[in-house]
Amino acid sequence: METASRVSLQICPFLRRTSPTVLRSLSTRTPARPGSLSKLQTIASRCPVMDQALTVQSARVGRQKPGTLRAASPIYHSRAAHSGRSHSHAGFEEQRPFDYEGFYRDELDMKKKDKSYRYFNNINRLAQDFPRAHMAAPDEGKVTVWCSNDYLGMSRNPQVLQKMHQTLETYGAGAGGTRNISGHNQHAVGLEDTLARLHRKEAALVFSSCYVANDATLATLGSRLPGCVILSDSSNHASMIQGIRHSGARKMIFKHNDVADLEEKLASLPLHVPKIIAFESVYSMCGSIGPIEKICDLADKYGAITFLDEVHAVGMYGPRGAGVAEHLDYEVHTGTATTTTDTPAPQPQKTIMDRVDIITGTLGKAYGCVGGYIAGSAQMVDAIRSLAPGFIFTTSLPPAVMAGAQASVEYQMAHSEDRQLQQLHTRSTKAALQAKGIPVIPNPSHIIPVLVGNAEVAKQASDMLLEDWGIYVQAINYPTVPVGEERLRITPTPGHVKEYREHLVTALDSVWTTLGIRRTGDWAAQGGFLGVGQDHEGNESLWTDSQLGL
Amino acid sequence: METASRVSLQICPFLRRTSPTVLRSLSTRTPARPGSLSKLQTIASRCPVMDQALTVQSARVGRQKPGTLRAASPIYHSRAAHSGRSHSHAGFEEQRPFDYEGFYRDELDMKKKDKSYRYFNNINRLAQDFPRAHMAAPDEGKVTVWCSNDYLGMSRNPQVLQKMHQTLETYGAGAGGTRNISGHNQHAVGLEDTLARLHRKEAALVFSSCYVANDATLATLGSRLPGCVILSDSSNHASMIQGIRHSGARKMIFKHNDVADLEEKLASLPLHVPKIIAFESVYSMCGSIGPIEKICDLADKYGAITFLDEVHAVGMYGPRGAGVAEHLDYEVHTGTATTTTDTPAPQPQKTIMDRVDIITGTLGKAYGCVGGYIAGSAQMVDAIRSLAPGFIFTTSLPPAVMAGAQASVEYQMAHSEDRQLQQLHTRSTKAALQAKGIPVIPNPSHIIPVLVGNAEVAKQASDMLLEDWGIYVQAINYPTVPVGEERLRITPTPGHVKEYREHLVTALDSVWTTLGIRRTGDWAAQGGFLGVGQDHEGNESLWTDSQLGL
Repeated sequence: METASRVSLQICPFLRRTSPTVLRSLSTRTPARPGSLSKLQTIASRCPVMDQALTVQSARVGRQKPGTLRAASPIYHSRAAHSGRSHSHAGFEEQRPFDYEGFYRDELDMKKKDKSYRYFNNINRLAQDFPRAHMAAPDEGKVTVWCSNDYLGMSRNPQVLQKMHQTLETYGAGAGGTRNISGHNQHAVGLEDTLARLHRKEAALVFSSCYVANDATLATLGSRLPGCVILSDSSNHASMIQGIRHSGARKMIFKHNDVADLEEKLASLPLHVPKIIAFESVYSMCGSIGPIEKICDLADKYGAITFLDEVHAVGMYGPRGAGVAEHLDYEVHTGTATTTTDTPAPQPQKTIMDRVDIITGTLGKAYGCVGGYIAGSAQMVDAIRSLAPGFIFTTSLPPAVMAGAQASVEYQMAHSEDRQLQQLHTRSTKAALQAKGIPVIPNPSHIIPVLVGNAEVAKQASDMLLEDWGIYVQAINYPTVPVGEERLRITPTPGHVKEYREHLVTALDSVWTTLGIRRTGDWAAQGGFLGVGQDHEGNESLWTDSQLGL
Repeated sequence: METASRVSLQICPFLRRTSPTVLRSLSTRTPARPGSLSKLQTIASRCPVMDQALTVQSARVGRQKPGTLRAASPIYHSRAAHSGRSHSHAGFEEQRPFDYEGFYRDELDMKKKDKSYRYFNNINRLAQDFPRAHMAAPDEGKVTVWCSNDYLGMSRNPQVLQKMHQTLETYGAGAGGTRNISGHNQHAVGLEDTLARLHRKEAALVFSSCYVANDATLATLGSRLPGCVILSDSSNHASMIQGIRHSGARKMIFKHNDVADLEEKLASLPLHVPKIIAFESVYSMCGSIGPIEKICDLADKYGAITFLDEVHAVGMYGPRGAGVAEHLDYEVHTGTATTTTDTPAPQPQKTIMDRVDIITGTLGKAYGCVGGYIAGSAQMVDAIRSLAPGFIFTTSLPPAVMAGAQASVEYQMAHSEDRQLQQLHTRSTKAALQAKGIPVIPNPSHIIPVLVGNAEVAKQASDMLLEDWGIYVQAINYPTVPVGEERLRITPTPGHVKEYREHLVTALDSVWTTLGIRRTGDWAAQGGFLGVGQDHEGNESLWTDSQLGL
């Protein structure tokens, strides 16, 4: 056996590439149910060599091979039993069809057991009473929403709504086709022009969502660029992780925001190999901010391109709301905002935003609508437009959505008051919570992650806030954050005026006491965790006092 | 070398699985540009064994390995040249960074060369003047849209628009979050309840689009069901092809609508192995209809589940607009339509629609809005809801879109006049074109594919119709249809009254003459093609005369 293992390690590409730690974790993370497979067994069943070996081994011990053990378990036979049909299929007298319903039930049971099963709250945000919402029934009593990504309340901005009503009336509810077949219109053209101007890029391209934009763009580039390697921040969003996986390209994960680790990985690759560095500006679950300039330096040095997800930053940072990349050259970009193509102001040159190759953003968070986009060079955008199935083969966003989104982006290019007020509310909320010892995970952004550290308690806290205090803050559990790092994620808006903020702080203080949740001092006593009860260095707010007019 | 090949064939899992024909095609389909790679070389560069071998071989002949040949070509060095930075990076004195812009340019040049580059037409469909639209400028003169998927004109239905205006006013432009974090609301609940009732399933789940629904559902099931095999119709839509690819599951492609071929493939698999048969009801580019009942029979016999894409059929077939599966039991479903949950009518039992495990549909075509969904058992839907990243990690559709879509589905459940009128217009358009010898590809559905057979001529015909006749019909070229099968795809609606239809037939007749495009008789003379100039058997309209009240 020892020898067989050594030989396998030398021959098998998978084993040679996979560390012993990962192998151990794959083989031991067996779901607790009879006849189920470890992840390693699932992977093995896809290998033509191992699959045969497992079949032979199973035949020897008189059972089905591990890859089909689940089907051999009696609980998976209910579909056949229900249909009442005969099982005397030639050659498979002993076999029964797979029990699909049993499989779904078991997957759901596992999620319920490990507390990762999601219960949705029915929240109806009221445009005329922002940031309030009613629950399932309109007369059920209102709650204050403290976890929406409609960060600036643009979903109820009168100019946006007026534009949408007009467009709906004139051009109807839906686009009626893909961009290529009757779904291309002045609204798509106008929105993409505005987005290109926002990021000072040659072109932009709109997708159904930024999940689709990230997935489609990374999958297309990663699969087409010959021998491409994608270097991905360890905290990247699911959409980028999927895009990278779908590309089939080699992936190297660098430690979150760790430029030294990134450089080490870049330096290990030949200069001529195409490389994409994929990262975010604001990481939404912890509020940390990516080192954009340093990553651009590394990209130049090692011949990589940069793919920057500004989903949680567009509308929120920079004098024109173009995101963190723009914010880093705040003064350069100030006063150069233009809202019409007729009067282009001189473009600032050699900014950090210029150096980023591909910027992706959403129209569904600070801009209050729905949809996502990429911005970059005209040829890159045209290549994605021409090659990405996730763009080509889907219905365009409705005209009214695109027109509303364009109005929203242009409004925020011309007005910085909303994002400044949002920052002021964030500062005062963070300060008030910290004064009470509520453990805010420190960060330089507008996100307020409050550490709980347990999935069940986080849900209890969320439920208690909703039921007893009329405050809606969703609990964030695995897999959105790692197990043990469960939190409440609070997002103030310009509408969260003093009265709401004081109510929130009182409520959290009470819930923390009632449920006995650890406070900042408790975390500090055990050496701190995720920055809570630790040194706050490097977490100064990105918006400076002078930028906020303080 | 001979011996090395034999040894490789025995050892390499890829070579053992791949037929000589496929290998030959992979290695010869080299794009015509200097230093480019064949697909086989790209695949080889991902194999840890071959990648090393190629590197060694390249070093011997004093060049870079084939996997990076493109970077060695001078035309790919412009990025480095522009940046003007030194190339004396330790150890790579001879190497230069990859030229990304050169790569994009070449990809685009290739598409322009093979005529698959897409030029979008700016078409603004007018709600108050359906099926007319204006081009880029509102005063540029109107055109008649003959290729929209807004098959029933529901995008301008007054009840849908009124519901959307109201919802926009009360609940704002965007949902503000994912379904789990503040983006779940009464509109999502209401829409999913309606969709479940429409298909008489336990549950439904709404996605950003049906592209996402198909991709996410197939990828999730295919990767989670242990050892799953997906059997896919050869004409399936790109979204299903991607979902299957993303699942990593084994794929078996059966010939389009060929149940004998499907059965052969099913019979080759052990009964207990989980299998998904993925297919469509109406295939949108040729208008053919899938043999739903026979496929359900095979699924039962071989222990598979059925995944049916009704994207081009929902709203269009069946007494309640639930699609082809409902239409096949037209009389059983007639008169059982309900538009409120308060008064449920008795559910017909054991229908073909009941037998389909997973139905997917869109809200963006016949229903005139945007978005997609799946419907099926409560546990299956809950499993996808709980496991699919493409559902979990994306912003919900706007409340107004969901409310409008629900109004549209309910309207069509209660009214069959639109789809009946659409069918009557389809019949008369097909008949009039056939009378002129315009080569309509015969089919039993509402799609009118007109065969051209050449990419350039198809675009010329489309341009001429638009410029000379004010008729917008997009040319459908590769990769949407195979090379040599290029066509115009015409989709009548209830709004295409006699005047428009006569104008269309006159225009096509003239364009066919001007461009010398082959007519039905020409195709027949060479034995026919795609059913044109051939026997029409099996292509009788699915809507019978009596169902249409004739």
